[in-house]
Amino acid sequence: MALELAEAHLRGLLAQLGLDAEYVRGEGDTLWWRTASGDEVPVVDFVGGYGSLVLGHNHPEIVAHARELLAGGVPVHAQFSYHPYANDLAAALNRVLWREFGTFEPYSAVFANTGAEAVEVALKHAEMARGARVAALRAEIEEHLADAPADLAARVREHNESRYDTPPVFLTLEGSFHGKLAGSVQLTHNPGYRVPFRALAVPARFVSGGEVAKAVEESRVTVLDVHDGQVVERDLPVVAAFFVEPIQGEGGIHVLDPVVAADIRAVADAHGFPVVVDEIQTGVGRTGKFYAASHVGLLGDYIVLAKALGGGIAKTSVLLVRQSAYVPEFELLHSSTFAKDAFSCHIGSRVVDFLESSDAYARAAARGTALKQALRSVAAEFPTVVADVRGRGLMLGLEFHDQTGAPDPVGELARTGLVGYVVAGYLLNHHRVRVFPTASASHTLRFEPSIGITDAQIDQLVIGLRAVCTALRDNPLTLLPG
Amino acid sequence: MALELAEAHLRGLLAQLGLDAEYVRGEGDTLWWRTASGDEVPVVDFVGGYGSLVLGHNHPEIVAHARELLAGGVPVHAQFSYHPYANDLAAALNRVLWREFGTFEPYSAVFANTGAEAVEVALKHAEMARGARVAALRAEIEEHLADAPADLAARVREHNESRYDTPPVFLTLEGSFHGKLAGSVQLTHNPGYRVPFRALAVPARFVSGGEVAKAVEESRVTVLDVHDGQVVERDLPVVAAFFVEPIQGEGGIHVLDPVVAADIRAVADAHGFPVVVDEIQTGVGRTGKFYAASHVGLLGDYIVLAKALGGGIAKTSVLLVRQSAYVPEFELLHSSTFAKDAFSCHIGSRVVDFLESSDAYARAAARGTALKQALRSVAAEFPTVVADVRGRGLMLGLEFHDQTGAPDPVGELARTGLVGYVVAGYLLNHHRVRVFPTASASHTLRFEPSIGITDAQIDQLVIGLRAVCTALRDNPLTLLPG
Repeated sequence: MALELAEAHLRGLLAQLGLDAEYVRGEGDTLWWRTASGDEVPVVDFVGGYGSLVLGHNHPEIVAHARELLAGGVPVHAQFSYHPYANDLAAALNRVLWREFGTFEPYSAVFANTGAEAVEVALKHAEMARGARVAALRAEIEEHLADAPADLAARVREHNESRYDTPPVFLTLEGSFHGKLAGSVQLTHNPGYRVPFRALAVPARFVSGGEVAKAVEESRVTVLDVHDGQVVERDLPVVAAFFVEPIQGEGGIHVLDPVVAADIRAVADAHGFPVVVDEIQTGVGRTGKFYAASHVGLLGDYIVLAKALGGGIAKTSVLLVRQSAYVPEFELLHSSTFAKDAFSCHIGSRVVDFLESSDAYARAAARGTALKQALRSVAAEFPTVVADVRGRGLMLGLEFHDQTGAPDPVGELARTGLVGYVVAGYLLNHHRVRVFPTASASHTLRFEPSIGITDAQIDQLVIGLRAVCTALRDNPLTLLPG
Repeated sequence: MALELAEAHLRGLLAQLGLDAEYVRGEGDTLWWRTASGDEVPVVDFVGGYGSLVLGHNHPEIVAHARELLAGGVPVHAQFSYHPYANDLAAALNRVLWREFGTFEPYSAVFANTGAEAVEVALKHAEMARGARVAALRAEIEEHLADAPADLAARVREHNESRYDTPPVFLTLEGSFHGKLAGSVQLTHNPGYRVPFRALAVPARFVSGGEVAKAVEESRVTVLDVHDGQVVERDLPVVAAFFVEPIQGEGGIHVLDPVVAADIRAVADAHGFPVVVDEIQTGVGRTGKFYAASHVGLLGDYIVLAKALGGGIAKTSVLLVRQSAYVPEFELLHSSTFAKDAFSCHIGSRVVDFLESSDAYARAAARGTALKQALRSVAAEFPTVVADVRGRGLMLGLEFHDQTGAPDPVGELARTGLVGYVVAGYLLNHHRVRVFPTASASHTLRFEPSIGITDAQIDQLVIGLRAVCTALRDNPLTLLPG
């Protein structure tokens, strides 16, 4: 073909790194790469669709169900009708949630199509709920002002007027990643992804783990009220939500500190704003539980699921909102042509059924332990190269020591954030292993295979990683392509 | 089931209107409704997935292809690799574009998953391009200031400094609809959808068709430069893009006036900002051409496709950007886990192939003419009830006269925007015909069937519409459910 029109620039970069493989088939944790000579070469895939493939590529049961649905004429497009299968999926997600968190409060489900979309739905819902809190406070103050002396009431109103329009504050932790759409990218810490678009949407406030309460305090805006003839300050609800990942994925595979989780829960309760737990990458079984936040006992007011909920085939996501925090009227304001479709909901239900009725959680935990031990053995062998191995279940990271001070070209590559991609290219071409660094911490490799990952596949990875570590230690130039 | 957790509030409203049908199967322009007694009743569907079903529900060729892809182990998740099938689809979309617009300039493709997502990608790309224009202007001015007297340069810099950060202006026409995500909903005119979320993202400026040039003029912001020792004004690139639909769908099926189209094109060229043609609902053959904008000769710098591109099965969308306006580095900043996947791209290519190799465009035009004539016959019969029939191809609207002054309860329903939904409930329950009003003009019914819509199905609609019009004229109460 003469012209390359679908992200040619990106492909050029991938080609330089030996990463422009064409994959023609996927099964389990294997992708088949069609090489230039036309051969199909199996590659062990530790990328796992960035967390989408807890069941692996094209899981036979999910594929069979998808094919049946299509053969049966599933009504993919039936907007604005009754969707019992959407209720079924919502109910299944609730049952798991109740078990893992020991609660019985129902969560309402608003479906979307991608993780980033569901984050934007959460932004919208949180802002609508905040608007209602502001309106309620204002109405209460107006009631008090009606009984106050006219000139005092006038001065209080004048003081308050512009403050009611204070923009919402969305809080999230440093290192967070919540998507790349116009609104959600402002919740993504990496300035490279976020800053060029900062004029498009409300900026988030990025909080260090130790300063959760302080960040809320610093966001404080007050309005005036009159109580018993005295002017008093009232807190305006400016914080719309606190977004948090149980394990930061793109930020470098950082497991949420339970102390920080408890801090977030406490300040949210104290100030009456929702905690949004972003389980887009962690959720749906990968960590050994369906909801990764249940490991640290963090029950969100909102919970976002996506990626693996589609079973590696469907594009679906959902925002779950605790009933006591839910705004039913939101359903009349928000909608999406593609969302809540029968195909995706049926697939999602089948994924949940499969996880719940098999030993999937135990396998995720066990395979995760096996993989972590393997990564730790590499780390132990190369202490000057590997800085850390961390993560939970099948969401693991291996961090290299900072290479930015190494002699060029490795130092140069590290400074431009490419060293992880050079390693990825080397592993793919020399060891038929597919890995990538996390998006915002490029000297941390991520590993998110399926629950079916075998010991032999892990061994293949270890052999490759040993070669990488040896090269990084002794002769980094050998990692470079061609 | 005890609990309803997937949009129960909406379902309650649908139930009141007799619209909470459960559809169990779709084929062509027919959806099968499973009634309370368990019978499956065929319903003629004129909603067509809000424009997604130009080929109808579950077109056999598309379904067969989807099933083959799944059976063959299509690698749905292979992010950050080479995607030749994405290039193939991009190339096919280019070939059609070149033919319909008589151009040969390539358009680069950035894939997303839904229409609203692609609009947000367009927002991001346009803002990145605008940022580069601002930076270029600033660099040019700085060069001039280097040669200017120091005190003059300092004063000019001080004047300019804060202005460089002027937020972007996005323009769109009154009545527009461009999605409901956090950023895109600000380009959607309907205040009910937009205003509760106005603090989340940059507001759009809504322009009346006759005031395109004026709106750009009113958005003007200047900075100072020094030329030949004289201080001169320079236009700051504040307008990031002008968004426009070839036919406003949710706004009430309004075909873009060619004069307005030419005005938009002219001011965009004069000021150097891109025109974003939103073909989410109009595109992919529905109007008798692949790109509806080609009817009015409006070649966008950006073009957005979604809905029907997925063939009624896949969720896919794409932003096409004219090469001369394209920012290749955007590919390194923006990404989506689900986008550009092999399954969706293959389906999209099959859709384009089908349209290009069949008589689909001619059929869309011919069936559209037949449907329009039928609607016009109803309008002619009930001139006091029907105000207008309009649209192009298979994207048609029938507008009722304003009923807000009618006696209650019809007047009341009209004032709350429900009259179109009452009509929809009546047609579904009494005539087994599925229609809906447009989202933002609720006394306009929309008709977007597939190219396979038959005369018998149109007759069934006409019989239903006659009954509706008779009732609206003589005895509106009979339209109410139960």
